[in-house]
Amino acid sequence: MSKILIVGGNAGGMTAAGRAARVNPDLDITVLEQGPYVSYSICGAPYFLSGEVQRTGDLISYTPAEFGRKRGVRVLTRVRAESLEPTRRRLVARELETGREVAFPYDRLLLSTGFKPLRLELPGSNLRNIFTLASLTDAEEIHRALEEKPRHALLIGGGLVNMELAESLRKRGLELLLLEMSGQILRGLDPQIADLAEKELMRSGVQVLKGKTARTFFGDSKGRVESAWVEGNSERVPAEMVFVDIGVRPDVSLAGNAGILIGSSGAIAVTPRMETSATGIFAAGNCAEAVHLVSNQPIFSALGTAANKQGRVAGENLAGKYSVFRGVLNTWVVKIFDLCVARTGLSECEAAACGFHPVSVQISDPARARYYPRSGTVTIRATADRTSKRLLGLQAAGEGADKRIDVAAVALTNGMKVEDAAQLDLGYAPPYSQVWDPFLVAMNALLRQL
Amino acid sequence: MSKILIVGGNAGGMTAAGRAARVNPDLDITVLEQGPYVSYSICGAPYFLSGEVQRTGDLISYTPAEFGRKRGVRVLTRVRAESLEPTRRRLVARELETGREVAFPYDRLLLSTGFKPLRLELPGSNLRNIFTLASLTDAEEIHRALEEKPRHALLIGGGLVNMELAESLRKRGLELLLLEMSGQILRGLDPQIADLAEKELMRSGVQVLKGKTARTFFGDSKGRVESAWVEGNSERVPAEMVFVDIGVRPDVSLAGNAGILIGSSGAIAVTPRMETSATGIFAAGNCAEAVHLVSNQPIFSALGTAANKQGRVAGENLAGKYSVFRGVLNTWVVKIFDLCVARTGLSECEAAACGFHPVSVQISDPARARYYPRSGTVTIRATADRTSKRLLGLQAAGEGADKRIDVAAVALTNGMKVEDAAQLDLGYAPPYSQVWDPFLVAMNALLRQL
Repeated sequence: MSKILIVGGNAGGMTAAGRAARVNPDLDITVLEQGPYVSYSICGAPYFLSGEVQRTGDLISYTPAEFGRKRGVRVLTRVRAESLEPTRRRLVARELETGREVAFPYDRLLLSTGFKPLRLELPGSNLRNIFTLASLTDAEEIHRALEEKPRHALLIGGGLVNMELAESLRKRGLELLLLEMSGQILRGLDPQIADLAEKELMRSGVQVLKGKTARTFFGDSKGRVESAWVEGNSERVPAEMVFVDIGVRPDVSLAGNAGILIGSSGAIAVTPRMETSATGIFAAGNCAEAVHLVSNQPIFSALGTAANKQGRVAGENLAGKYSVFRGVLNTWVVKIFDLCVARTGLSECEAAACGFHPVSVQISDPARARYYPRSGTVTIRATADRTSKRLLGLQAAGEGADKRIDVAAVALTNGMKVEDAAQLDLGYAPPYSQVWDPFLVAMNALLRQL
Repeated sequence: MSKILIVGGNAGGMTAAGRAARVNPDLDITVLEQGPYVSYSICGAPYFLSGEVQRTGDLISYTPAEFGRKRGVRVLTRVRAESLEPTRRRLVARELETGREVAFPYDRLLLSTGFKPLRLELPGSNLRNIFTLASLTDAEEIHRALEEKPRHALLIGGGLVNMELAESLRKRGLELLLLEMSGQILRGLDPQIADLAEKELMRSGVQVLKGKTARTFFGDSKGRVESAWVEGNSERVPAEMVFVDIGVRPDVSLAGNAGILIGSSGAIAVTPRMETSATGIFAAGNCAEAVHLVSNQPIFSALGTAANKQGRVAGENLAGKYSVFRGVLNTWVVKIFDLCVARTGLSECEAAACGFHPVSVQISDPARARYYPRSGTVTIRATADRTSKRLLGLQAAGEGADKRIDVAAVALTNGMKVEDAAQLDLGYAPPYSQVWDPFLVAMNALLRQL
């Protein structure tokens, strides 16, 4: 009976485990997870912190025991993988409860070690109540800190997590200051769309300072953060909680130390079957590279959608099937208070960096029939390549931005030209769209520029 | 200066007129419309009748005068085209106000005569307050009749118009009985999805009788309908209003009488440039055929989305450009009280009739993250071809059905295989989707059956 060992019990790892077990129920599958939880939705954490989701348990799909019972997979939590010996086909791990070292032999291995959030290294940055939000344990700690009724929070970095946390924390009544070191929040967007997100933050009572960061944190007598010094400010900023969202990096130390090839993106290089440079060792999830379907370049994706799909493909290959992962578009969507912001493919900035000749248009149009009650507006920024006339990417903000981005994602996957995308037979009824859907309006506008 | 003559002042015709004028401002363009209005959204009529839209004026994009001023196009209303002489390049029309016959010479002609609703030919079917809803004039008449505070309406036929009217009329407080002669409402759907629509009607207080139709209408002393005899019923059914929605046919009499080729679908046969069998005579909108992108067969489409796109293509060709219309998927979406119902491509029944080997699956899944507050469910029925493994069509009902249908429409346009569609990088955040969007869940379910 083949021994399958999986390192990491979240999106990539658990999806792979479940899929492998389903494809071949005879496999002997073990999952090692260093944290106490597996198979949960970290994306749901902001809604737990806001109070909209009652318990962290609601975010968990399976406990280790349930998963074991239902799928016949052994799930070991609080076990940290420490070193990997590909030639001996074994992995050495430590049981965090007992401190004991245990060796796990395997026939095929999957690395699904995910990503690590970057942390601040500043005077005072070890004070309590300075958080990153990357695990359910983080969410529980933040939740406990919120029970102490803090009044001010400092959000450092304008990434997706801090966008969602801003809404959660305002719902809990906190005063918020968001610092973005660069000139723009949400760097995956072109500035014109990021501006709409920033305006929504400000409209919702979040103070936003760009080109600024914190330099020092100050604590109270109990070792909890109390305030911060922000460069350029004469006074300290009150902050009983700090949320750091300044980027993430793939967690590749286990793979790198074992001599497995790390790609140019910083994530583990993989074949389309999700196999690494070491035969029999696969990688899936945010620790593994993914090919961008527009640029054809391998990228590091920190999104759960990609992690799950890679996990599924890896699981099928671990079980002996032949399955390939096609790639990603870095499609994401985020709710920023009452604004839906989404993107897929390449932004204009990214397209230029990839060597395309990008042309962009930006339109705003009602998302439903103009006369339909409470019809909101959606702004769409679309980018195409002047040479090939292909669509390269779409960004959108407003009502139904998520729908238009999904439409664009399918068009991009198929390498559609703008003139073909402009004739897509999308659905229309007054409560849902216009007879020329805003996506089509954007395509026609783009066509005039090509 | 080339003379362009356009017959029909709605979706196809006005779009063509506007587009031709924009491409070549030197053209001499005349539009003839037999009704009093041009350039309006008939799709908005149910929302005018419900009271959600205040005035029919809100549904009108341009008055003839505005359109003339802004686009330099002559728009003549209340002028009915009566006969066409392709060899002499002239059209004879009648001014309905004066009864005068006028001849219009042209260099290029566009037929955009749209469709006609089928009417009932029954004893009493000429009584007042028996309606079809196919024009703004119809909507105004219905609106006036509603001011008389009728208490009961009979809806004959379970098509899209009666679905929307059911909601409008319930909002106005009427008791409703819907008769569907066949065994299923919404015949463009497979019965499993049509059932969900029927349940929503019943849940919303609409009585639905299938396999039944009205046989006789009875009037009051003022010639207004008062009741109907429904086959199999012992008593008359009270009905101060009757709405007939039993199908539509393309209005091709002008073209047919002039010897222009009518296609197998009953609509005017056209080239991809929207030219008819008569050189220099184009057809666009619901009177013209459209190629179905999955079956590759010409069909009659009664949808405004297709009419507008065909009009745009025809307008460009009228103005001397080379532009082609790619085709349709018969994508539609409808709001039935609180249920969104949508479809694209081929249903399983249609696929079998077209010679495919259809395989279908049906799944129901939360449309947002399971734990997200007020997350509704969406049911998706997906059909693929067992031989080619290509996706053939999608039907959906529930929250975000419109989004999943648009995604499917793009996949179908590109002839995607199910295994490729199952890996689409769609956007995810808990308020908008699940990490495996229900569309992807349906594709994975379908993949297991292929």
